Amino acid sequence: MVIVMTPDATDEEVWAIVDQVESVGGSAFVSRGVSRTIIGLIGDVDLFETLNLSGRPGVARVTRISAKYKLVSREHRPEGRSTVVVGGVSIGPDTTTLVAGPCAVETPEQTLEAALMAKKAGATLLRGGAFKPRTSPYAFQGLGELGLRILADVRAETGLPVVTEVVAPHDVDMVAEYADMLQIGTRNMQNFGLLQAAGRAGKPVLLKRGMNSTIEEWLMAAEYIAQRGCLDIVLCERGIRTFETSTRNTLDVSAVPVVQRLSHLPVMIDPSHSGGRRDLVLPLSRAAIAVGADGVLVDVHPHPEEALCDGPQALVTEDLQELSQALDALGTLMGRRSMIEPWRHLRAS
Amino acid sequence: MVIVMTPDATDEEVWAIVDQVESVGGSAFVSRGVSRTIIGLIGDVDLFETLNLSGRPGVARVTRISAKYKLVSREHRPEGRSTVVVGGVSIGPDTTTLVAGPCAVETPEQTLEAALMAKKAGATLLRGGAFKPRTSPYAFQGLGELGLRILADVRAETGLPVVTEVVAPHDVDMVAEYADMLQIGTRNMQNFGLLQAAGRAGKPVLLKRGMNSTIEEWLMAAEYIAQRGCLDIVLCERGIRTFETSTRNTLDVSAVPVVQRLSHLPVMIDPSHSGGRRDLVLPLSRAAIAVGADGVLVDVHPHPEEALCDGPQALVTEDLQELSQALDALGTLMGRRSMIEPWRHLRAS
Amino acid sequence: MVIVMTPDATDEEVWAIVDQVESVGGSAFVSRGVSRTIIGLIGDVDLFETLNLSGRPGVARVTRISAKYKLVSREHRPEGRSTVVVGGVSIGPDTTTLVAGPCAVETPEQTLEAALMAKKAGATLLRGGAFKPRTSPYAFQGLGELGLRILADVRAETGLPVVTEVVAPHDVDMVAEYADMLQIGTRNMQNFGLLQAAGRAGKPVLLKRGMNSTIEEWLMAAEYIAQRGCLDIVLCERGIRTFETSTRNTLDVSAVPVVQRLSHLPVMIDPSHSGGRRDLVLPLSRAAIAVGADGVLVDVHPHPEEALCDGPQALVTEDLQELSQALDALGTLMGRRSMIEPWRHLRAS
Amino acid sequence: MVIVMTPDATDEEVWAIVDQVESVGGSAFVSRGVSRTIIGLIGDVDLFETLNLSGRPGVARVTRISAKYKLVSREHRPEGRSTVVVGGVSIGPDTTTLVAGPCAVETPEQTLEAALMAKKAGATLLRGGAFKPRTSPYAFQGLGELGLRILADVRAETGLPVVTEVVAPHDVDMVAEYADMLQIGTRNMQNFGLLQAAGRAGKPVLLKRGMNSTIEEWLMAAEYIAQRGCLDIVLCERGIRTFETSTRNTLDVSAVPVVQRLSHLPVMIDPSHSGGRRDLVLPLSRAAIAVGADGVLVDVHPHPEEALCDGPQALVTEDLQELSQALDALGTLMGRRSMIEPWRHLRAS
Repeated sequence: MVIVMTPDATDEEVWAIVDQVESVGGSAFVSRGVSRTIIGLIGDVDLFETLNLSGRPGVARVTRISAKYKLVSREHRPEGRSTVVVGGVSIGPDTTTLVAGPCAVETPEQTLEAALMAKKAGATLLRGGAFKPRTSPYAFQGLGELGLRILADVRAETGLPVVTEVVAPHDVDMVAEYADMLQIGTRNMQNFGLLQAAGRAGKPVLLKRGMNSTIEEWLMAAEYIAQRGCLDIVLCERGIRTFETSTRNTLDVSAVPVVQRLSHLPVMIDPSHSGGRRDLVLPLSRAAIAVGADGVLVDVHPHPEEALCDGPQALVTEDLQELSQALDALGTLMGRRSMIEPWRHLRAS
Repeated sequence: MVIVMTPDATDEEVWAIVDQVESVGGSAFVSRGVSRTIIGLIGDVDLFETLNLSGRPGVARVTRISAKYKLVSREHRPEGRSTVVVGGVSIGPDTTTLVAGPCAVETPEQTLEAALMAKKAGATLLRGGAFKPRTSPYAFQGLGELGLRILADVRAETGLPVVTEVVAPHDVDMVAEYADMLQIGTRNMQNFGLLQAAGRAGKPVLLKRGMNSTIEEWLMAAEYIAQRGCLDIVLCERGIRTFETSTRNTLDVSAVPVVQRLSHLPVMIDPSHSGGRRDLVLPLSRAAIAVGADGVLVDVHPHPEEALCDGPQALVTEDLQELSQALDALGTLMGRRSMIEPWRHLRAS
Repeated sequence: MVIVMTPDATDEEVWAIVDQVESVGGSAFVSRGVSRTIIGLIGDVDLFETLNLSGRPGVARVTRISAKYKLVSREHRPEGRSTVVVGGVSIGPDTTTLVAGPCAVETPEQTLEAALMAKKAGATLLRGGAFKPRTSPYAFQGLGELGLRILADVRAETGLPVVTEVVAPHDVDMVAEYADMLQIGTRNMQNFGLLQAAGRAGKPVLLKRGMNSTIEEWLMAAEYIAQRGCLDIVLCERGIRTFETSTRNTLDVSAVPVVQRLSHLPVMIDPSHSGGRRDLVLPLSRAAIAVGADGVLVDVHPHPEEALCDGPQALVTEDLQELSQALDALGTLMGRRSMIEPWRHLRAS
Repeated sequence: MVIVMTPDATDEEVWAIVDQVESVGGSAFVSRGVSRTIIGLIGDVDLFETLNLSGRPGVARVTRISAKYKLVSREHRPEGRSTVVVGGVSIGPDTTTLVAGPCAVETPEQTLEAALMAKKAGATLLRGGAFKPRTSPYAFQGLGELGLRILADVRAETGLPVVTEVVAPHDVDMVAEYADMLQIGTRNMQNFGLLQAAGRAGKPVLLKRGMNSTIEEWLMAAEYIAQRGCLDIVLCERGIRTFETSTRNTLDVSAVPVVQRLSHLPVMIDPSHSGGRRDLVLPLSRAAIAVGADGVLVDVHPHPEEALCDGPQALVTEDLQELSQALDALGTLMGRRSMIEPWRHLRAS
């Protein structure tokens, strides 16, 4: 059961609902969106119906639902697809967002250099990993909090808000102090404790699809985050595991329109990790925008041959120019705002 | 070992090479392309080297190779990607080709109606199945030769060349009499006898990827066709089998740029069969062109609710208009000739 | 709709049914089993019901069914699981059958040597390929009819009935002249023309599972064979394609009990092709018998290092002794007849 | 680089090595096994070689290796496969271990009843989940610490040591207080923080294979645990995700012999979760023992129709008798100690 509050509902009204639900043995999870608050109830629906919740102050709508996911479903945002705002930058149906940066933060110099490359190419958000989940315990695991400080310094210098991965529930608060958006990686898509912690952190979340997860499981993972109070979730398709070996994973572009029918959340694509090859990043990015994605997330590195992580897929300066032009042309063809125009405008004035 | 003949090599010069190779116990397969003839040799390469083939009349180049596929590989067409011409219609790097028609030929009326829909939307080739490989022996298996005659009649009426599937080696000659292009379906991609028969039939071949086949196996299947004398092969990605169940198969768009690095053959995409859902055909078609495919192959049906085969994925008239505009806009953005301009030009004159 | 005839139904009675069905526009397929004849009807079931078929002479039972497969389903053999007899050798619920031989027939000597190895180890059927479907057109494709003649000679010498693959419909009659059982390989499981030709050939058929096929598709492929008159079908699981790369394919042992719930047909396992590694053949063979399979099919080669096809998975003499003992011990534990006892008995008398 | 200490090496000798390695900028992880201590080094191998570690007191052997996993590899336990002891119960090459219990701990009564069923059937370890990672946030998530207390009570009553899942790093110490063995579930196989926490907890660990993980990734996950000091790891294959839908997952029995070639760790099979169907548990359990697994892990429930989690796959009393007899017969055939004899012996005395 889901309760949508009116836009001007007060905190007291929200907590009054929660108290009532808990008084009959139910649980209530409060999700605060930009424009309104939603309360998801867990427990005996028939009992809840005896509470006459729809007549309570601050309540706009009460819905009894059976869908497996509720808060992230399309039905529960009748006004259409969501826009998530990260440090002032929009991700949603009107924009083509380029998030770029190094796979791993290695040094202040490398991170700054990569961020400047990214910015010059039209990226409006900086990505970079300080905590790296690696298959091998003998591989580079990231710089940890030192990496987060580097990212914050580079943000100060470039103005680019930071998207960075968190891999353990007890790190969430620390990462949230530095980051503008928390990333949940593919291997943690069903790390439910981490999802819940991220949902409580008060920052937007980028949720990558598990490389072995169905679309339904992915939306259910988003629901875990939403249930803990965060509706500012951006989904990111990054390839699934199949028998094909010429690419690292198989990018499932169909997931974008499928998700958009089921959920109001924005969806991006990561063409770098799905293909694992630099030469595929540009064509897959074009496919991403053409299929309807709200943006792409790419690895860049000033010196890919020296990268400590995933060098073979990182773009270099020349690639980025071409990528940027392609994204802008395709995005405007799809009816989105130009990535370039506002900048031109600024330069002109 | 592969021998590329000069453009003006005579038949006698070609057969002289074949005789020599066979005289030392080897086999030679002659492949005649639009502009030149290639001979693929099988047997003891060291022995072949003693024949001094590169000095023979009509020989342009002799290459000793170790790639698993030769005739279809990129290296063996240094002048770049191929264009295949089907009944006067080009499929290749300069064009965006729309092939459309009913999944199965059911009646003359339904086929003509579908062909007119397709033509109006800018399709330049008509697809339609007279032989349908079906999972169940109790499902509609196609009209057979009667279906081929219907296709020929509809071609006469509309001017659209015909692409149609062949499912058994002994049907190849009959189908080739009616068809402008032979289609090998996903379930027959490793039906090697059928590949060889199709390669000898003197018609261009559309080779769909096996739903469980790697890209390497797909190119090897194309090599079977090429080895029997046909280089006019168009590859078609139509989705692979994965764990995801929200789409019938998972469209592997990455396959397009991967194949284009490895082979000179044109590559198309079939968004209808991969998704199995009408609402996905348009976004997946856009992704197809944006990723670099040379065209798309879609199911259309005047009355999908009555279709004997795959009705849920067939486009109707309104969809087709939108598809056609999207393909044209994206194709021109990708540097291809407009699908619409030539017709306008014709109408104007 | 399926009609089961009485055990003593005459040919005239069978054809009278067929005529009646055809007279109302239906199709009837006659399947002759060891003990009774079944007729499968395709067409308008309601119309068939007006024919009062159950009252006709020779008819034991008429069933209106909706299952996707009929003739091969468990329901249509209420007396239990089938036993298929190949050249006097039983494959079914009472026996543990070892089919062994070289992957490819190369020379008379190699084939005889392999057959003697197989026989000594308790194999009662000889396998060996004369037609080899190979991914690459440049790989050894088998000896063709010469290979079949070698197999026939080796059968004459050893007394082992022959199981051999057929890859094209037009070869079926020739192969059936030499073979005791026709094998349909994994790449041809949905080569429907081949299935139908094999079903008409009058010989038992070994149907391997497609490496990408679901169990339902597999049973549907068996139905194609059954519908053309052959119920003497043995299914063979040989591994499916997954993301795991340490084995060639992933042996799906669960398929055995799943199939046995759905179908009356015997099921074997091929541990050689699924694993692709000699060291896995013994443990996977044990798993096969323990999970309930009716036997195993293994590659043997007197000199695997010289094999033209799949050498790395072929067993040698010492392996075979151990395999044979393991199969016998496990088979008897599962309540099957000993593989060894009858031979001992023969030797004693 | 890996350093194997002598059996009588002192703690001081171990820490002296660690200090030396850290003094040159490396990291050293100490793993204490039953009979000896191993130190895994990370960092510049060439630098380490200058330390002359092999000459240090307490050092038995120094190996410079390139395998991706070290501590869990077969090469690093030349004396053969390991036996892991859990609360006095052995899991290893000499025994057939049956671990049974309810999927989820629901009530004290249900848990005790299930434990008594399990014990009667020859199970020597009790499994049961107090923390349940569930795809849906609206599904039953387990009783948490209350469930752990129930398990401890049931252990006191039945004498069966307890295996239970832990899903978050911060719960590890609490779970380790109650449990005899920590289970890492399939969705957490690459939750690296959890692996590391479990490795430090001082309890044996049961590591389930990720449903999408390769065998190499699985061993690498085990290496994460080993690197933090725990070599008492038991691997558990529980099915991988494939295209087949008639079973929940596809049990990869080949993984058992493949792992046993690569690693010294014991390997078990969970036939309940892989098949997801009660009727498959017995045949898959037989296949498990026959392929060489060291035991099986099954769900039992006194009243499966009321189970809060995975009821359809839970065994009931009659199934368990048959399972127990089959495991014992197959295990002894494989050369393992009988599961039943010791108990008979105890009853007799």
